[in-house]
This record gives sequence, structure tokens and C-alpha cells, in this order.
Amino acid sequence: MTLQEQLTELARQARAASRTLALLTTDEKNRCLRAMADALERETAALLEANRRDMEAATAAGLRPAMLDRLRLDEKRVAAMARGLREVADLPDPVGRILEERVRPNGLRLRKVAVPIGVIVIIYEARPNVTADAAGLCFKSGNATILRGGREALHSNQLIAQILVSAGREALGDRFPMQAIQVVPTTDREAIPILLSLTQYVDLCIPRGGEGLIRAVAECSRVPVIKHYKGVCHVYVDGEADPDMAEQIVLNAKCQRPAVCNAMETLLVDRRIAPSFLPRIGRALAARKVQIRACPAALETLRSLQSDPPLELRPATEQDWYTEYNDLILNVRVVDGVREAITHINNYGSAHSDAIVTCNEQTAQEFLAGVDAAAVYWNASTRFTDGGEFGMGAEIGISTDKVGARGPMGLEELTTYKWIGYGQGQIRT
Amino acid sequence: MTLQEQLTELARQARAASRTLALLTTDEKNRCLRAMADALERETAALLEANRRDMEAATAAGLRPAMLDRLRLDEKRVAAMARGLREVADLPDPVGRILEERVRPNGLRLRKVAVPIGVIVIIYEARPNVTADAAGLCFKSGNATILRGGREALHSNQLIAQILVSAGREALGDRFPMQAIQVVPTTDREAIPILLSLTQYVDLCIPRGGEGLIRAVAECSRVPVIKHYKGVCHVYVDGEADPDMAEQIVLNAKCQRPAVCNAMETLLVDRRIAPSFLPRIGRALAARKVQIRACPAALETLRSLQSDPPLELRPATEQDWYTEYNDLILNVRVVDGVREAITHINNYGSAHSDAIVTCNEQTAQEFLAGVDAAAVYWNASTRFTDGGEFGMGAEIGISTDKVGARGPMGLEELTTYKWIGYGQGQIRT
Repeated sequence: MTLQEQLTELARQARAASRTLALLTTDEKNRCLRAMADALERETAALLEANRRDMEAATAAGLRPAMLDRLRLDEKRVAAMARGLREVADLPDPVGRILEERVRPNGLRLRKVAVPIGVIVIIYEARPNVTADAAGLCFKSGNATILRGGREALHSNQLIAQILVSAGREALGDRFPMQAIQVVPTTDREAIPILLSLTQYVDLCIPRGGEGLIRAVAECSRVPVIKHYKGVCHVYVDGEADPDMAEQIVLNAKCQRPAVCNAMETLLVDRRIAPSFLPRIGRALAARKVQIRACPAALETLRSLQSDPPLELRPATEQDWYTEYNDLILNVRVVDGVREAITHINNYGSAHSDAIVTCNEQTAQEFLAGVDAAAVYWNASTRFTDGGEFGMGAEIGISTDKVGARGPMGLEELTTYKWIGYGQGQIRT
Repeated sequence: MTLQEQLTELARQARAASRTLALLTTDEKNRCLRAMADALERETAALLEANRRDMEAATAAGLRPAMLDRLRLDEKRVAAMARGLREVADLPDPVGRILEERVRPNGLRLRKVAVPIGVIVIIYEARPNVTADAAGLCFKSGNATILRGGREALHSNQLIAQILVSAGREALGDRFPMQAIQVVPTTDREAIPILLSLTQYVDLCIPRGGEGLIRAVAECSRVPVIKHYKGVCHVYVDGEADPDMAEQIVLNAKCQRPAVCNAMETLLVDRRIAPSFLPRIGRALAARKVQIRACPAALETLRSLQSDPPLELRPATEQDWYTEYNDLILNVRVVDGVREAITHINNYGSAHSDAIVTCNEQTAQEFLAGVDAAAVYWNASTRFTDGGEFGMGAEIGISTDKVGARGPMGLEELTTYKWIGYGQGQIRT
């Protein structure tokens, strides 16, 4: 069998499994998920052994320590995967929700009902825990998954999937669709463009990882892709902001967890408040070892700042405004009010999460309406863009796209809908 | 300027216009739409003159009569375009709807609000009326449009867009975004792949037309595409169907308007009812000059049918089951109950519209749950899949995709959403 034939068969089986999976009851799906969680814990020793093989090969291949850390499984991480599956079991079933209902003048009753999307390809990098997390969310939402993790994690991923499928089979017997959770059984790079050309069997691709991976997937895919793209998030401190609140939000958005996509990368400060606010926030950022890349006006104000430790300061380049640092580095720009802030954000941002701090409601409304992003905040940190914080329970990622889901993607965002028409013999005249 | 530069500039201006358009009030948009309708009627003579140039060139180029008819504008068609714009003005504004609202335990209030998608490229074939219809729907839903019609309709399309934009400008003055409605000013085929590579400025492409056009667009696009693909629709007549109702629905689904996408292409008949139902429906179809392509069992039953005129009958090929005839041709297959019907539909159908006729509720539920299509009907004709029939007022098409909109796409389906977080200084801990 060629790779093309092998993957076509895999996808065809996923499509067939998705038909069975879509018809399972909530209780059946939850029983499977809990059995899967138990099985992962029971098989911890085998999982750590498979992972050890991946780790050894990756170490021999010279993988960077940060990547090795992502690849590593330990008892705590296996327990976390199991816990994740149990949490997904506890969430409401997103399938079957009645989204709309209407009766037409001819008596035809129309219902818009949430249904699974079908077959979802998930492409991700080193972390093997994504295998269990993504499979669990897709399973609960009635979707078959084809998982393609990092090449270095293949043994770990294959064993995780095998444990999940065996446990489902044990819980449900013949009714369990064995091909509903599959790991692509090769590290061949050609597998991705082949899989993403199978529009007859694959409904959606969700890539998770760095910008390079996501761009490469979007570039080659013939199936719809929902991108979980970079987060170049902004906080705009308006001239009418409460300075204490502004300082709290800026420090939280930048420093609480700088490596995540909803952390702030650029601080915009209204020219009216810049002379007082910039030195204050400059000292607070210096104390947290945040480096600043500043526009000329901010540079001018901050250059003579006295702080301990001293502020690391340099001029921002044009490219800096587009950059997701994921680190203790912050762009700072002085703007002429909310309109210039909106223009900057729509021009340089990644349509992820942006916040305004102001006491002026009209200014806030202008910002919330004008900024084109998945999430916009008034007097709150950008860090809230997260499935858990939004009350979705768990998320498969945060979409920066507009078609399909936008913002945090939980179980409901892994469904589509169908229209059901209930008639009594209606025909069209 | 190269074509690439020219189209990039056009798309960049569309993006800028979309920002202004998104902020117009409902009243402002409706005033523009009504002014546009008036202007189209006022400029009828000029429109017919521009269309005459297109018609002459198309006739000289040997365009087929059916295509020439689609290209032709007359006073009635201009009036219909104007009426369409007024109807869109009368529809509720889909922007600003609050789709969800929740308050988190930390007091953060989250609202999911409908917003325009942004910039939409519409690609279509000969009919110039699509220019006004699509521009009107996109404008009302706050989206800038880039219109690419058939090459033979360029003069007509350019003048329509020019009239719409001038009217909007007159109605709203400086607040009207002049680049919100643009026609691609070239017939160069290269324009389409270039436009559909401009992911920074274009949010969505909606192709309208034949299978070839839609496949070509989907193949080359780097922006999301919502496909309005072929309709291979089915009616399954169950063993427990009311034969009178079944006959009415079958005749309606096939014959009322055979050229449209929600017309039936394949009739599936339960083996239990085939001996009585097939001769009956065969005679009714023969009377309406419908040709039949039948499976062996149906062929066997229908071969000796006495009817006037005689039934045109031939064996169905494998390819026939996949075919959208858009004509008075019908595939007929005898199946072993609802499960085989579901399997046939999911295998050969185009996930558009499928119906079951039965008095057995359990059988109906199995069908409605098992068939994976945008619209499924119990005891009603497939012909109801339509924006007007669904109460949406107007539609830009019927999506056979699952990501983004599914089924009829009206104004609401031309919006996406953003999350708005209203805080009092909340930070993440």
C-alpha cells in the first residue's frame, strides 16, 4: 500500500466510525470516557516505558531541553490526562442541543439542532498529553479524530490512543467505533498534505502549535482549517483610566504567565496620561525584569527613569509591533486617544484578545466596537481568554479565525448543526 | 501596477471600508439600501445600455442561448434587483445580536455578540443581478464585498456597483465607505487565485455557480470558502409511508422546479412497499415526462409498466447515483429499509437535503439522526431548503459545508461573533 492508499483507508474508516459515534447516547460516551481515564491510570507503567523510548531517541537526536520537557510523561502527567477525560465526561453533551425552533406558516416545524462536525484532524507538536485531551473533547462532541502529533512522540501517542480505544471497546462492546480515535501511524511529512486533501472523509483540521506549523498546515490544506494562531494582545490605557486598576491589569496581562497566547505583547498609553503613567508602570515592569521596546515618545519619557533594577529599554522596530514574544518583553507605544489605539490594534494585532482600561463608558464602547478581535475587554485582563475562564470547562484551543468558531473552542465549538423539518405532507407550491 | 499590486490595494481598501461599515447604524444601512434601490430604477436606461454592450460581445463570442438569457437585463430584472434591496432593508439587522451572556464567579460579565465577518469575496457566473443581491446582503450584514462575476457581464456589473456606491454616498455623505462594494476591474483569470491568497485582507470567499467553478475556487483558495455545492437530494419512501403523501412529495421534489439544487435526484423505495408504490409513482412520473434510471430491482418492476406516455427507463450506472441532473431525470433504487437508505444517502449524497416519508416515528427519528445533511425532512418535500421558506427573508446561497454556515445562508449566516468582557478591574490569579 502506498502512503496515499494507507491514509485514504484510515480516513475512510474514521468517516465510518464518525457515523456510529454520532449516534451514541450521552451516557454511552461518558461511560467510555471514564473507562478511558481509568485505563490510562492503570497502564501508567506501560505509558512511561513507551515514553522512555521516545525520550531516548529524542535525546540522541539532540532535541532541545525545553522540547524534551514537553515530550516527557511522568505519573503526574498521566494522572492529569486521566483527570482531563473525567472532567470532559462531567461536562454537558453539546450534541442534540436545540439551537432554534420555528413553525412556518404552512405548518412545517423547523429545528436547528447541534450535531458533530464529523472527522477532525488534529495536528500538534511534542506534548503527548494533547493526544488524550483532544481525543476526549472530540469523542464527547461526537467527532472521530485523526491525531498527528510530533514525530518524536509517536510511541507515546500510539500507546495512548490504543489504551483509549481498548477501554472504549471494553466499556461499550461492539457498539464502540474502534476507528473513532486514530493516530497517524507514520512520521512521514508527506502524510499531512495527503490527509488534508481527503475532503470526502475529513471535515476539519485544527493545528495546534507554533506559527510555522500553523502556516504550513493552512498553506497545504484542502479541508477547512480553524487556526489557533499567535496572540499579539494589547492593553490600551486611556487618559481616563484609574491608574491603580491600569497598573494591576498591565502587570497581570504581561507577567502572570508571559508564555501564553493571551498575555499582552504591546501596551498602548494615551498621550494624556503618558507623563504620569509611563514612569509608574516603567518602575513596576523594571521590578519584574520586563524589557521594554518603546516608540520614540515612550522612549523619551522612560529614558531618564530611575529604577532598581534599571529598566532595560530600547527603541521598537516596525517588526516588533507584530511580534508575539511569549516572554518578559513588552512593546510600549504612546497613542493619541482611543481611535489611534484601535487603528494600531487592527493593524498590528492578531485578533486574539485586547483590553481597554478607562472610566469613560463612551470611550470603552468605541474600543469594544472598533477592535476586531475574538475577545475584547473593558477593565479586565486579556488573560481571561480561556475555555476554563469562560466557563466552557475545557478547550481544544483559541481560534483567531472568524469562520467556524472564534475565541476559546470548547465542546460546543466542536459541533455544527443540521436543520430538521417536521411535516405532515407539506409540498412547495 | 502589476495585477498583484492592483488587487492587493483593492483588498486593502475593502478591509479599511469594512471597519467603517461595521460601525454604521441599522438606520444608516437601511437608508443606503433604499437609496441604492431607487438609483437602480432611476438608472434603468443606462443599465440596459451597459448590458447591451455585454450582450453584443457575448453573442459575438458565441455564448450559448441559456447563458445569454442569464446575462440579459431588462426592466423587469432591474426592478427585481431594486425590490430585492428594499426587502433586505426591511429585514432585521443581524449585527449586534447578543447570542449569549454569562457572569463569571469573579464578576466578569461576558457577552457573545454578532459582528460582521469583514471582507467577503463573491465569485459567480453570468447573472448580473447577483451583483446587487450579494452586495445588498453583505452590506446589510456589515461586510465589505469584492464581487467577481462572469467575464461576459463586466460592464453590467461595474455599472451596477457604481450606481450602488454613488447612491450610498448620496444617502450618507462622508460616512459612506466608498470601497465597501467593489467589482474586480479585470477579467484576467489570474485575479481569482491572487485575491484568494490575500488572507490579511479577505476573510471569506463564497463561490456561486456550477461544480467546476466551486471546485476551482476551493482548490486555489487560502481564505476560508463556504461552498454552495451541488444538491444530490433524496426522498426515501418507507414501507410505512402513506402512499398518497409519498406520491405528492416525490412529484413535488422532482418536478416542481427540477433545475434547482433542492430538487430530488434519487428516489429510494423500501422493498416492502416497492411492488405497489413503484408502478404508481412510475405512471405519475411518466405522465410528467420524467426519465428513470433504475437499480436492477426497480428496473424489473417498472419494465412491464403500462403508461401513456410510456416510461423512459434505463439501468442506473454507479456514476448516476452521484449525479445532479437538474433536469427531469430521476434515479430510483429499491432499498432494504431505513438503514440501507441512510447508508446510500451518506455515501452518494451531497449533504444538502434529504427526506423520509413514513408514519413510523421511530423509523423517522433514525433517518433524521443518521442522515448527515444540511437539512433533513420527515414527511415534507426537499424543496423547502431555501432562505425564504426558512423565514430568513433572503439568502446568498445554501451551504453544503459544515464549518461556518450550513444550509440556507441569510443575513445571520453572514455574521461571526466576538466575546466582550465587561470588568471592574478583574485580573487572573
